[in-house]
Order: sequence, then C-alpha cells, then structure tokens
Amino acid sequence: MMSAHDAQELRPGRAGPLRLRDMGAFHVGGQALRLQGQPSTREVLAAGGEPVLLDPNGSYWVGQMYAQYFLPETPGRATPLQLWHGGGLTGACWETTPDGRPGWLQYFVRRGWDTYLCDAAERGRAGYAPRQLWGAPLSQTAEAVFARFRLGESLEGVALADAAQQAFAESQFPAEAFEALVRQLVPRWAHTDAVILDAYQALLERVAPSVVVCHSQGGMFGLTMAQRRPDRVRAVVALEPAAVPPPSQDDAAYAVPTLIILGDRIDGDVRWPAMRARIEAFAARHASVEILSLPDIGMRGNSHMLMMDRNQLDIADLVHDWLVRTLEG
Amino acid sequence: MMSAHDAQELRPGRAGPLRLRDMGAFHVGGQALRLQGQPSTREVLAAGGEPVLLDPNGSYWVGQMYAQYFLPETPGRATPLQLWHGGGLTGACWETTPDGRPGWLQYFVRRGWDTYLCDAAERGRAGYAPRQLWGAPLSQTAEAVFARFRLGESLEGVALADAAQQAFAESQFPAEAFEALVRQLVPRWAHTDAVILDAYQALLERVAPSVVVCHSQGGMFGLTMAQRRPDRVRAVVALEPAAVPPPSQDDAAYAVPTLIILGDRIDGDVRWPAMRARIEAFAARHASVEILSLPDIGMRGNSHMLMMDRNQLDIADLVHDWLVRTLEG
Repeated sequence: MMSAHDAQELRPGRAGPLRLRDMGAFHVGGQALRLQGQPSTREVLAAGGEPVLLDPNGSYWVGQMYAQYFLPETPGRATPLQLWHGGGLTGACWETTPDGRPGWLQYFVRRGWDTYLCDAAERGRAGYAPRQLWGAPLSQTAEAVFARFRLGESLEGVALADAAQQAFAESQFPAEAFEALVRQLVPRWAHTDAVILDAYQALLERVAPSVVVCHSQGGMFGLTMAQRRPDRVRAVVALEPAAVPPPSQDDAAYAVPTLIILGDRIDGDVRWPAMRARIEAFAARHASVEILSLPDIGMRGNSHMLMMDRNQLDIADLVHDWLVRTLEG
Repeated sequence: MMSAHDAQELRPGRAGPLRLRDMGAFHVGGQALRLQGQPSTREVLAAGGEPVLLDPNGSYWVGQMYAQYFLPETPGRATPLQLWHGGGLTGACWETTPDGRPGWLQYFVRRGWDTYLCDAAERGRAGYAPRQLWGAPLSQTAEAVFARFRLGESLEGVALADAAQQAFAESQFPAEAFEALVRQLVPRWAHTDAVILDAYQALLERVAPSVVVCHSQGGMFGLTMAQRRPDRVRAVVALEPAAVPPPSQDDAAYAVPTLIILGDRIDGDVRWPAMRARIEAFAARHASVEILSLPDIGMRGNSHMLMMDRNQLDIADLVHDWLVRTLEG
C-alpha cells in the first residue's frame, strides 16, 4: 500500500534524478570604474602578520550580477525561467529549504525548465563595490526579519533556536529551522535599485526571452523590468512583491502576463494591507495582471517566504500550471 | 574523420550530460551574536522614499559559510570532493571559465565525484557580518590582480578590455576575457582567517571525510584543516597555496596525502620565489606532501589561476588521476 509520503514523492517535480544537458554560471552587467586620489591604508592581511600599505586606486568592476544555469537534458519547456530573490537574500533562498527539503530550483529543473538561479547586483556571488564607492551596507536583525516575514508577532527576547515557540499557530513556515534562514541573510544597500535593475536588464538581454519568478524586493524588479523590456519578459510570477511600479505614462501598455501571489495573515500585518492595496490598484490598471491570494483558495498559513513554506511545492504546482496555460495555452 | 575538437570532447570529463541523483545547498558554521547599545540611523531604503529610522540592535548569525552540492547519479568515487576558492573570489571561480569553457566543477561532477562548491565565510552566498562587528572589507583593483595572478607584468594605464595586449607571451590564461575575471572579484576582510577556518571545520564535520581541492588563500585553509582534522580530510590538492602552515609541534604527525601544484613564471615574480621556498620546506618536513611544478613536466605558461587557464582540464586530469591512485590505490 502506498504511504502518504510515497504518494507525495510521485507527484511531478518532487523527486527523481536531475539530468542536465549543461550547467554553468556567468556574471553580467555593471561597468568598469576607476578610483583615484584615495589615500592608501595600512592593513594587517593575516593574523600576526606585518601591516602592508594598500593602495585602493585603480580599476574595479561595479554593479554586475551573477547567474547560475541548470538546463534539463530533456527540456520540457520552450521558455527559460529566472529566479530573482528578495532583499537581504541571495539565490540560495530558492535552493534547499531551511529545514532541508528540495527547493523551487530543483522543482522547476525537474519539471523541465531551463532555470537561471540569480544573485542580484551587490548580493551573494555577484560581489559589491569598494567601500569608497558605495559606503557601508545595511544588515537586518533576526528579530526584524521574523516579524517582517510574518513568521510570528515578535521574537524579542527569545533565542533564535526557540523561534518555533513564537511562530504563528498553523504557520506553514518551518520555524524550527529559523536559524538556518538567519544564516542565509546577507547585508544590502539601500541606494542600489537602479544598479540592480540595469544588471537584470543586461541578463534579460543575454538570455532568451524568459519567465521571471521573483520575490519581495525582487518582485518590484520583475514588474519593473516587464514594463521596461516587455520584449524580453514572457511572464512574471511575483511572490509578495514589496512594491509595484507607480502609475506612469510608461506602464499604460503593460501587457506581460503577470501572476502576483499573496500569502496569509496580511490583514493583521502592520505593512501588508497598504502594500496589498497598491498591488490591487496595479492589477486593476492592467488586464494582464492577476492576483492569487492563497487563503482565498483554501491554502492557509503561508508566510512571506512562500518558496520555503511547508506547502511550497503545492504553490510551485500552481505556478507551473499557470505558466504552462499562459505560455503554451 | 575526427577533428581535434571532437577528440578533445571525447576525453573523460569534457562533455556530455550532467546526471545528478541530487543537488542542493546549505549554510554551516558561525554563531549567533547580539548587537546592543548601537545608535539607530536614518536611511533612505528606496530612491525617492522617506528616510526611515533603522535600529541595528538585535541578533545576527556571523561567520557561517555556504556549500552547494552536486551528486552524480552514478557515483564513481567513494570520497566527496570539496572546492575551496582563493582570496577575493567565490565558488564561482570553479564554474564556467571567464572565456566560457566548462570549469573544474563540471569536470569533477562528470568524473563521478560528489562535489561541494563552497563559498568561504564572508564570501559570496555565505554573507558577512554587519559593519558594526567587522568594519569595512578590502577590495582589490584589477591592476593589482593582473600582476599578482601572474597574467602579465603590469596593466597600469591600460583599459581592462585591452588586457590581452599586456599578457605574458604564451600565457595559458584567457586574457581576452580578463574583464569577466574582474567581474568575479569580491571584497574580503583581512582579519577573518580564524572565522573562515572554523566554518570549514564545521563543513568537514558535516560531510563525510573528503578530498579538499583548494586555491591560493584557500590553499592555506586546506593545509591547515588537514593538520587540524586529519580524520576528516582524506587528501588535499592545493593549487598555489598562498601560505603553508608554519612549523609547529602540531604538524609533526602531518600524514594527509597532499599534492601542491605550481604554475609557470614563478622565478620572475616578486612574491612567489619566497612562497615556493616555504612550500618546499613544508614538503621536506612531511613525506605525505608532493609538489608538482607544471613547467617541470613540460606544461608551460600557467598563471596563478590554474583552474581557469586554457589547459585547465589537462591539469584536472592530473589531479583526478593522482586522487584515484592515492585514495583507491
């Protein structure tokens, strides 16, 4: 007799080998910049070593991004799919979940998509500019993330290892593995939106016209790029985009098929009701934009980290089916 | 009739599908730290937005590293293989070369190794600590890297795109793609050796006893970890390690099989003759340590970036064969 676990494994995208015709990576976008007239500094480069005089003047590449590609041996889909992470995160958020389950990366590769796992400019393997050019980045506390990602009301005064005690009842987020999410967080800058968008544009121009699956801060980038380069973006799936493009003359013709997915507990949040209102206004302006509110179809308990939640592959099924209908329909 | 290109493609590890039984990623090591008593700062988080007051006080995870694993469907080898990058770089240095050829990652996966592509603590997808804890990192100029990696005498006053004009004659480095190498560079700290080593130790303790293939700064980490945890390191292949562990009581029993590979043009370099002398002294102290100087076997023109050079897969063949002899002997 088949167990519930076996039945789950038999559903598409859950298990089985990942057979690739190719994989690899590249950096794209950005520009060469020169520093000059900056003072040299004395730095100890290895513990116990002698200080050396370091001259920062010279050339750097600034504003590039990183993309890692996984191309199934038997491609099932004609359109590449790009995964764009949110603020304070990297492409790692789409890989193995904090509690060790296969992520959306593995899911979409198994379902035949040529998948691009991206680190935005200044995040992860993309690298970032010298301090003399950009100054210092901002870091987010675990406590801020816990509340902002709608994992629970507050983590104040609670050890990270005990986060599950503070999680919302019936939350889909694996809060027992909250520490593993905190290990994924990276600093970010607050003034680099234009740099990040330019690098995404360079990526879109390099790869064939693509589906963009994007999350949170990345959602804003995906929707903006669909507006800026509709010839390179075949569809957008935006998981809880942190912002939507404001009304403008530019967006009057917005016609890229777009699915915006929202999780649970938005009503009680301090920020999300206003953000949802802006998303609804955006959808009202554009016939190609659909909103999928998961609680409205009976999926309860999803956090802001939809791609990590316990039911994330059920959500991936919805995304896959919507994409197939939209692109191949 | 078979072309030279076809013959090359038919050699093991060069081409063909990459069939994986699994792939994924995790962060490991580091510790939770709390910031307290720090001032809040006003930050503009999106261009044109209102400044918000950001409170940096709270919990962070600091010192973790990132490992991405690619496990062949038909494992040919019993021992996992870990790729540890050098200073100012990330795991991306083992992927597609700057001029677009498959890298050592793809090679070792194709040859049946369970391969772990690592970003050291504070590099790439590992993330890094808030500025309040570690201060600012150092960045390397393209000009410094060009000379230090032994690509040519000097790039001073030459555009990055024209680097090939300045490259050493008959260099194996694809200098026409130097810009793509510069895009891979990331800032680094100078005081984090102990943090990086602790995270590598946590990785070694999590994965089965492994081969460590390491480069430059990573070479020092690989040799040090073989000394510290010989039970977890089955063999070390160090490409031009930037330092070797100094003589100590601890290393008297060093017995991990170790291959140190050196490229060309060391004699004329400002730093490498002294570094080679220390490597030779290290090998003289330990019977398990071999040095392979590529010019001595007729392979000329290799830069410091052995895994990116035009003949890098021929070097990978030497590494693979040495590992098979050493481990399976």
